Amino acid sequence: MGHSITDEAGRRSEYSLKSRGVIENPNSDGRNVEWPPRKSLPAEIAQTAKEIFFPDDPLRPCKGQPRSKQLLLFLRYLFPIFEWSRGYNLTKFKGDAIAGLTIASLCIPQDIAYAKLANLEPQYALYASFVAPLVYAFMGSSRDIAIGPVAVVSILLGNLLQDEVDPIESKAEYLRLAFTATFFAGVFQAALGFFRLGFIIDFLSHAAIIGFMGGAAITIGLQQLKGFLGIRNFTKDTDIVSVMRSVWRPVHHGAKKNKKLFWVSAIAPLISVIVSTFFVYITRADKKGVAIVNHIKKGLNPSSASQIYFSGPHLKQGLRIGAIAGMEGVAIGRTFAAMKDYQLDGNKEMLAMGTMNVIGSLTSCYVATGSFSRSAVNYMAGCWTPVSNIVMSMVVMLTLLVITPLFKYTPNAVLAAIIISAVLYLIDIEAAYTIWKVDKFDFVACMGAFLGVIFISIEIGLLIAVCISFTKILLHVTRLKTAKLGKLPGTTIYRNVEQYAETIKIPGVLIVRVDAAIYFTNANYARERILRWLRDEQERAKENKETEIKFLIVVLSPVSDIDTSGIHALEELLVSLKKHDIQLLLSNPGVEVIHKLQSSEFIEHIGRDRIFLTVEDAVKACAPEASGLRRPQRPPVVTSAQGRPLALAAANSHWCLGSPATGHGRAWPGHWRP
Amino acid sequence: MGHSITDEAGRRSEYSLKSRGVIENPNSDGRNVEWPPRKSLPAEIAQTAKEIFFPDDPLRPCKGQPRSKQLLLFLRYLFPIFEWSRGYNLTKFKGDAIAGLTIASLCIPQDIAYAKLANLEPQYALYASFVAPLVYAFMGSSRDIAIGPVAVVSILLGNLLQDEVDPIESKAEYLRLAFTATFFAGVFQAALGFFRLGFIIDFLSHAAIIGFMGGAAITIGLQQLKGFLGIRNFTKDTDIVSVMRSVWRPVHHGAKKNKKLFWVSAIAPLISVIVSTFFVYITRADKKGVAIVNHIKKGLNPSSASQIYFSGPHLKQGLRIGAIAGMEGVAIGRTFAAMKDYQLDGNKEMLAMGTMNVIGSLTSCYVATGSFSRSAVNYMAGCWTPVSNIVMSMVVMLTLLVITPLFKYTPNAVLAAIIISAVLYLIDIEAAYTIWKVDKFDFVACMGAFLGVIFISIEIGLLIAVCISFTKILLHVTRLKTAKLGKLPGTTIYRNVEQYAETIKIPGVLIVRVDAAIYFTNANYARERILRWLRDEQERAKENKETEIKFLIVVLSPVSDIDTSGIHALEELLVSLKKHDIQLLLSNPGVEVIHKLQSSEFIEHIGRDRIFLTVEDAVKACAPEASGLRRPQRPPVVTSAQGRPLALAAANSHWCLGSPATGHGRAWPGHWRP
Repeated sequence: MGHSITDEAGRRSEYSLKSRGVIENPNSDGRNVEWPPRKSLPAEIAQTAKEIFFPDDPLRPCKGQPRSKQLLLFLRYLFPIFEWSRGYNLTKFKGDAIAGLTIASLCIPQDIAYAKLANLEPQYALYASFVAPLVYAFMGSSRDIAIGPVAVVSILLGNLLQDEVDPIESKAEYLRLAFTATFFAGVFQAALGFFRLGFIIDFLSHAAIIGFMGGAAITIGLQQLKGFLGIRNFTKDTDIVSVMRSVWRPVHHGAKKNKKLFWVSAIAPLISVIVSTFFVYITRADKKGVAIVNHIKKGLNPSSASQIYFSGPHLKQGLRIGAIAGMEGVAIGRTFAAMKDYQLDGNKEMLAMGTMNVIGSLTSCYVATGSFSRSAVNYMAGCWTPVSNIVMSMVVMLTLLVITPLFKYTPNAVLAAIIISAVLYLIDIEAAYTIWKVDKFDFVACMGAFLGVIFISIEIGLLIAVCISFTKILLHVTRLKTAKLGKLPGTTIYRNVEQYAETIKIPGVLIVRVDAAIYFTNANYARERILRWLRDEQERAKENKETEIKFLIVVLSPVSDIDTSGIHALEELLVSLKKHDIQLLLSNPGVEVIHKLQSSEFIEHIGRDRIFLTVEDAVKACAPEASGLRRPQRPPVVTSAQGRPLALAAANSHWCLGSPATGHGRAWPGHWRP
Repeated sequence: MGHSITDEAGRRSEYSLKSRGVIENPNSDGRNVEWPPRKSLPAEIAQTAKEIFFPDDPLRPCKGQPRSKQLLLFLRYLFPIFEWSRGYNLTKFKGDAIAGLTIASLCIPQDIAYAKLANLEPQYALYASFVAPLVYAFMGSSRDIAIGPVAVVSILLGNLLQDEVDPIESKAEYLRLAFTATFFAGVFQAALGFFRLGFIIDFLSHAAIIGFMGGAAITIGLQQLKGFLGIRNFTKDTDIVSVMRSVWRPVHHGAKKNKKLFWVSAIAPLISVIVSTFFVYITRADKKGVAIVNHIKKGLNPSSASQIYFSGPHLKQGLRIGAIAGMEGVAIGRTFAAMKDYQLDGNKEMLAMGTMNVIGSLTSCYVATGSFSRSAVNYMAGCWTPVSNIVMSMVVMLTLLVITPLFKYTPNAVLAAIIISAVLYLIDIEAAYTIWKVDKFDFVACMGAFLGVIFISIEIGLLIAVCISFTKILLHVTRLKTAKLGKLPGTTIYRNVEQYAETIKIPGVLIVRVDAAIYFTNANYARERILRWLRDEQERAKENKETEIKFLIVVLSPVSDIDTSGIHALEELLVSLKKHDIQLLLSNPGVEVIHKLQSSEFIEHIGRDRIFLTVEDAVKACAPEASGLRRPQRPPVVTSAQGRPLALAAANSHWCLGSPATGHGRAWPGHWRP
């Protein structure tokens, strides 16, 4: 590939005028390693900060706009309603109205049911379905997500709260604590969003969430099943229930497949509620012991601003519970977004949900977030914009104003059925199976969360999920992958010998690729691992009477970054190799790496002529030497008075106090010492 | 490079018999992506476990040996003394004896001084210098490390202990707690080593340790300076001290440069102690207020087994302090090994040090570890084996038996001077400067630890160091690097356009390389970032009236692994691209990745003919299409009744409940939606 040297050379000289770094290699067809001038520190910091906090570059369109326009665009960004409301028309409204009515008919019974999970009176859930969607409609980015109380958060909140205050005995206190928790959940979410810390949620792996959701669904489901067994002796209701359930299940599943049938699953709950309520009413089954909803308070949300604890012991509890519930809510939102493939600004969503819950906590609502079941229905009903949320909220408002009393006779059994069918959405066995197939460790995380939730508690399940996820990351950062490369016959391509069986090895040369950034967590390991490759290769060479290894080519292409510990490890590697008169060559270091090799002066220690653009170039460089025609020109190691090498001292004085003691280990066989 | 297709093809058929995976690409000169049959689950687990716990393969020589031989080799591995003692001769002993005497002369005064830092009587440090080195000589792997009490651990232990118990008022209790802490420090170290958890220490970055050590050194130094000022009014001692110091400093530095002078720095402390003690004795300066050591108990270590708290409130304190001190001791050992470029089995070293401290705690010693200053001297004095430690320990024993009383008149000022000169070894400004040059974030960690130790406390400094190190790792795992590639003119090489300015772009094709394993922590970001590259590229194309982007080649070479979230992100990416009729091509996936792409069926969704061995092949595959000659054959996206795409549902049903809502965001300009 000797072509185009001249013009490249020509161009290069011109670059070097632009102070571009270049490492010329006489034996590499004029193809040299390059790097641009290093960025200034502020520029670097700004760059990093941008990637950390604004990877999606949300305020992009504002760039280069006049102040006023910028403000407008920012408002639009903050309140998407200003954007989509323009060009809103009747057709869209029709779709939204239908969708809104449908989710309303689904959400009212669900709310009544979920409130029970949180040990609260039904109206508080309805309040939440009235206020929260309105707020979200203004600030939210997604048009599908249907906002309101959800099963998992409700039960989590219920569990956490009743650990602190008894929901029956000290009712008022419990309620106040609930509002407090909701308030801080909101503050927590809003803060995460505002400070662009959304990526924290990423530490909850997809696998863990799948497991967590499944576990929560089953826990809730089992809890509710009790609701049935309690009324076995009443044929009528049981019939209704069983009928409803037997209708429900297939429909619910049918809906998943056949989009035309979604409305059946959507209005089924309302119908079953109406029917069952009616039956209970005319038969007065409640007198005969059928558990019913009883009184639901009529009227709109009272203010609850005065009820939030901003001091006292409950403040801390509220904070803690709020943080958990808030995180939980965000996690659900994220999962939902993931499951429905949203390209949303997660941080902005959090800000919206946070604001929503803060306002909610001031108007007698408890934690609301995006609901799986309702959002799916909302989507299938063909909503166009968040207006469907507004419609739903209006319907709930009317319900609160007019018809809540009618729910008095609704039997709990039906609500139980509704909850069960709703949480079925959360169980994703298929996903779990894929996780098993793809990544066993992920599956462990998934199962850990699942079993933790089922056998211990929802909080613990969440904790387990986080811990396992973290363990995985820690293992990942302490153990990077390395691969021995071989040449694909008849090409200049070098690939992992384990992957490509036909690769051929170059006699006397070992090529190792390091497959990750070298940081302090894996620097030691990286060095040890490379030396192990070398050791194994040498032994193999010895056994097969092949030319002994004289060159180690370390391929740095995948090494996106390196830190001082990493450089340190390279220094040590270099010294270890020098002692055995093995030459170290580097191939294709990236921008970051080459910069750091330079600033640490390692580049001088290894020699500029030992850094190549491609593996092929590196191999060409050592091939003649490997074939034993000429000895390596590098000087042998300096040795101290005691006849022990001082190479490291020579190589890089400030890394060590004395000389490297690498040789010592040879004292016993357990350790090969380079 | 069309050559050798046939023989390759020939070979391949033979591989496929061996069930090797192969993805044939018609348009890639018969160079195809391959992968070996997937490992069985147990094999995979074993492999992973080995890399995590036995990366250095310590029991290697035992393999394939008869049982008895294995046991022998294991014993040798556990007690290296059996290894190096064979072939031990007089010459070696001479070297060891000299070295041993030298470090003994250094360690005795140091011990007396360090004991003060731990608020203990001098003999306890001497005890530690008698027992610990003996144990280490049997189990330790390093021949240079001189074992004994060290300044940093002593002061740390002192701080921690006096927070719990007053060292003056409740002396006995304090002593017992010290032994307890030492015991648990040992247990902790031994456990870490035994369970091969040494890599935990790697989370303390080199930079952090440099900072921590510097801070500790300065704190200790300043503390000791008080020692001088207290005796300014006494010409004689001051003279001795200042003389000693003025001799000392240059010598100490000289020693660093001129190896021949090491012995001066080595024996200087002892000489100054003897001289000053003598002067104080004849002048009775102590009567005039010169602080002196006073009584040192004569005789060997009494047993302290009965004194260790195995119950009661002190147990927990002992555990906590022990853990910290133990971690500290290990960290120092590691730093030392790093600074002196040891190739040691860190885990085995910990086991040795742990055993050493456990035995120590039963024989009235407090935490001992490898000492910087003494080890350096030991090395320079030309020790050959750990026998130098034995010699030292013998000398200390004699001291304990015979001459300890003579130290009665040793003025504290001299000890202060000795400590100061010893801790100077810990300050490594050069290293700090390199860290600053190489990696700014590391420098922050370094300074954080440094300032934390100086201005708050040693424990807090350690804590800060760990926290900053962790933050770095978390940022690293949430934000992977990506690069846009271009073709080097006249080659088939593709490189980062930011690094190589002369790269040329292929019209209509965007090539992005992902530079790290794709895990749940960075999967979302990876997808967003790739889409951002695409967005920017499309806009640039629009501005410059270039052919619009029709192909996205994602280069997976550096992606060593991918998990379910990663696959999920790829699925989402695929869908997003399909909507815009942009084709996704993958280049050079590794073994892990290709296996997981398969098991998740992603490979079917993207199409087997969309995966290439090299970027060049991928480019060739799309070049004709890119030039607009023929349209892509992939079918357009399926759309739902509402005219909204159901691509993801089609692509991979179990990832989502409904259809991707990707398109929605287009509602407002803040977000480009692929």
